[in-house]
Amino acid sequence: MDLTALAPDYVRAIAPYQPGKPIGELAREMGLAEASIVKLASNENPLGLPPKARAALEAAVADLARYPDGNGFALKDRIAERFAVGHDTIVLGNGSNDILELVARTFLQAGDSAVYSEYAFAVYPLAIQSVGGQRIEVKAREYGHDLDAMLAAIRPDTKLVFVANPNNPTGTLLKPGALLEFLEQVPERVLVVLDEAYTEYLPSEVASDSIGWLTRFPNLIVSRTFSKAYGLAGLRVGFALAHREVAGLVNRLRQPFNVNSLAQAAAAAALDDMDFLARSVALNRQGMAQLTGAFQRLGLPYIPSWGNFVTFHVADAKALNAHLLRNGVIVRPLAPYNMPNSLRVSIGLPEENARFIEVLEAALG
Amino acid sequence: MDLTALAPDYVRAIAPYQPGKPIGELAREMGLAEASIVKLASNENPLGLPPKARAALEAAVADLARYPDGNGFALKDRIAERFAVGHDTIVLGNGSNDILELVARTFLQAGDSAVYSEYAFAVYPLAIQSVGGQRIEVKAREYGHDLDAMLAAIRPDTKLVFVANPNNPTGTLLKPGALLEFLEQVPERVLVVLDEAYTEYLPSEVASDSIGWLTRFPNLIVSRTFSKAYGLAGLRVGFALAHREVAGLVNRLRQPFNVNSLAQAAAAAALDDMDFLARSVALNRQGMAQLTGAFQRLGLPYIPSWGNFVTFHVADAKALNAHLLRNGVIVRPLAPYNMPNSLRVSIGLPEENARFIEVLEAALG
Repeated sequence: MDLTALAPDYVRAIAPYQPGKPIGELAREMGLAEASIVKLASNENPLGLPPKARAALEAAVADLARYPDGNGFALKDRIAERFAVGHDTIVLGNGSNDILELVARTFLQAGDSAVYSEYAFAVYPLAIQSVGGQRIEVKAREYGHDLDAMLAAIRPDTKLVFVANPNNPTGTLLKPGALLEFLEQVPERVLVVLDEAYTEYLPSEVASDSIGWLTRFPNLIVSRTFSKAYGLAGLRVGFALAHREVAGLVNRLRQPFNVNSLAQAAAAAALDDMDFLARSVALNRQGMAQLTGAFQRLGLPYIPSWGNFVTFHVADAKALNAHLLRNGVIVRPLAPYNMPNSLRVSIGLPEENARFIEVLEAALG
Repeated sequence: MDLTALAPDYVRAIAPYQPGKPIGELAREMGLAEASIVKLASNENPLGLPPKARAALEAAVADLARYPDGNGFALKDRIAERFAVGHDTIVLGNGSNDILELVARTFLQAGDSAVYSEYAFAVYPLAIQSVGGQRIEVKAREYGHDLDAMLAAIRPDTKLVFVANPNNPTGTLLKPGALLEFLEQVPERVLVVLDEAYTEYLPSEVASDSIGWLTRFPNLIVSRTFSKAYGLAGLRVGFALAHREVAGLVNRLRQPFNVNSLAQAAAAAALDDMDFLARSVALNRQGMAQLTGAFQRLGLPYIPSWGNFVTFHVADAKALNAHLLRNGVIVRPLAPYNMPNSLRVSIGLPEENARFIEVLEAALG
């Protein structure tokens, strides 16, 4: 008997998300020493863990045979205080990936549709497909979201619209005015998931007051993560803020212990580590100048980015990527995003960026 | 507008899982010192974390700003070696809760049915409902699974059968012969999820060779957890073993980073800590005798249990539970399982068990 026939078509059709290549895997494949490898493939924080989070982890290890607090009381308390919201507006996620999937599972039934942009984060179409939803992918405008076209794409059976701001993997930004105008026009029966995984890197003059907007737009869901500027990618913590009735629905599908004890403790402490956050943002600004300066010098076109990564275009991305890998540098090929001649490089430490530039330059010349 | 109307009926109807009351919560509510509270509510391991897992955690903290290995290579390697299975037969879960939910989402569409037993683990009906499946609950026999009735309950639209062995919260066990006979009769188009969260506590003479059966029954999925005897409840790690095609389907729906870095590292190390496992099992045997001895002495009926917990019956469980809480002892009321006059107590350290017995005795006398 064909075992795969036991799952619905939409499950069988899923091509799972391809994560950035782990350092250990490249080391095994190429026979390289792990310490010699530079990974600039997954938009991680090169500064490592916030010192306050590390201290919190050490304290939390004592209690690991106990289940986590399923309500995440202490972490929600810190989030509520920082963003001036109520506990009941918060949904904790095992990374924001969990948030995106939970929202899809809460509001989309098989056959319902959801809208997202070309070149937007790969997890949106995956989350839609995982419940048998219909994917409406809207052509991008200059690698970013075409909000007018996305509005026009909303159908009677549309339940969700995903908006990434800044967008990954292209780094494009929607300004507050444009976003606000969009939210004013989306029918209130359609939920807008505003994914702000990279928002901490934005200068305040271009950052949207998305959390402030929540009181005005009950159909808005703001998604945040601790995996980028907060430096906790390995621990898996994200959260959503939304109208309490919307948050209440999503929380019904949340696994009771989806965020583990160490992750809760570290995230609560990371929210307090403003010094670490400021250093991360400053380092990112500096690294962005280092990388884009090199691209300009080498004559490589790139997409100006508001995140902690830059996407650049080359004549033969496949060959360049293979060359980078052989030399122990991991970046992200964007072929899965239908950008076969683009690579995305995450901003690392100055010396990691320099190593990437050096190998890149040798490959090109 | 009614925001809750945006979600399907089956989502709105979910009553989320109620975890055991955390120590911190009882301390806040009753004004008790946390150190004075004994929690015997969640079938956790009273010995805490395996020493080898603690050492592995300390080593893994260095790399937490990196995403976890989405393929879980090192942990799968240890599982594959221990259980003599291939990497491609393994699905890693964020606790076995994640496994149970992933299996439901992979094989159940809205309207399909799944079979489980009365008094079985509460997550089965939740997982079925979360995808809009139909729940077929089969009356228990002496608080355990009635396998004949479960077989008879399978309908043409049935895709899954959940079997807990030992069962939580009743502690009942199905012997290998009975289970094997059951598996031989289940149609191969119906997947059987054999949840063995407590299997490590079983004496070898009553343990099923469930993993050995996998080669014979391609429709069998064995679920295991690190939250019980392995002492890692706070870290969230479980796994499923199944035919590689079945595992492949479930892995399509798995979030790429569902198990975090520390959890992967600790679980791999815990598998090697055979000394800790042996101590945990021995302590459990001793605590079981301590608790059942007290129930017999006090004339309280209880259900003989093969897990790390015992369910006992009293005249007024609500009043007794309130008394226990006031005295800083947390157990699990089984009213949500339709056993309004039963309480489940987890086996703790000898002094924790003694404290429970003391408070219990005072309440009864």
